[in-house]
Amino acid sequence: MKQITLSLGAAVTLAVAAFMAIAAGKSGEDAAPLFVKEIPPGYRDWKLISVAHEEGTLNDIRAILGNDVAVKAYREGKIPFPEGAFIARLAWEYLPSEENNKAFGRRQSFVAGHPTNGVQFMVKDSKKYAATGGWGFAHFDDGKPAADAFMQSCFPCHDAIKSRDLIFTRYSP
Amino acid sequence: MKQITLSLGAAVTLAVAAFMAIAAGKSGEDAAPLFVKEIPPGYRDWKLISVAHEEGTLNDIRAILGNDVAVKAYREGKIPFPEGAFIARLAWEYLPSEENNKAFGRRQSFVAGHPTNGVQFMVKDSKKYAATGGWGFAHFDDGKPAADAFMQSCFPCHDAIKSRDLIFTRYSP
Repeated sequence: MKQITLSLGAAVTLAVAAFMAIAAGKSGEDAAPLFVKEIPPGYRDWKLISVAHEEGTLNDIRAILGNDVAVKAYREGKIPFPEGAFIARLAWEYLPSEENNKAFGRRQSFVAGHPTNGVQFMVKDSKKYAATGGWGFAHFDDGKPAADAFMQSCFPCHDAIKSRDLIFTRYSP
Repeated sequence: MKQITLSLGAAVTLAVAAFMAIAAGKSGEDAAPLFVKEIPPGYRDWKLISVAHEEGTLNDIRAILGNDVAVKAYREGKIPFPEGAFIARLAWEYLPSEENNKAFGRRQSFVAGHPTNGVQFMVKDSKKYAATGGWGFAHFDDGKPAADAFMQSCFPCHDAIKSRDLIFTRYSP
């Protein structure tokens, strides 16, 4: 039993290594993508950019915050974002609020529950993160950075929104 | 005689003072509630408290922001809120995002559209707003304060949540 477990572990390690090698090779001359491994301090104090709700398996209500560099660029409509722009995505369980519904006298209110789906960041550093459009991507679950294999999916999706420098979220006044 | 006159003068002075005190007390109880008529400057830079979605006729996605006094109290779990605590409610149209749905590969994403349902505030000033639980209430549509008749409905509803000092929204970490 123990041996099987070890073998499985080894197989997973090999598979991840192979995936990473392929990913690195695919990025061509560029180095394998780098990902952000540390949570930027004080992000919970950043300013609000906008809010959203995701249905489906995500099933959350979320907020996008930005540091001063990012929010200034948003408000001035500056694209691309300047170096040092930091954007955070927080998310919480999407829950009906019986308390609010009682106050409103009808079922209509959904509020934020416990944090869910991790915390994500993007930071603009054109040199360091040249392989991923000048943005460093980050995802943390309970404070721990996600595996690189998971992080590979960030850039290809965000790259679809080139006209807004890879940032989907618009600023909400 | 002179002494009596003085006594009478003192008595009159006392009586007037007593009358004024009673009148002040009565007008305190009977006075119409005061409402906040000016938008607090810089509120869009305040920190995020939480987010919510309202269905029904409101049909918005919203954010609750707080000034430093309010957010500090929230984080420390301090009830009642201290004097000077300011809480803002912003809201935007609740719109499906075709752009996000395309990126996710399925219909699931709702984002913030134009601002809607005005901007609301509560400010803690126990003396000034004694008639409404120590909170001053405000609602602005396109920068203009709502009529007092409209504002009468704020306090009776918020008063239902006495255990949290009249504030429905909980802090989302």
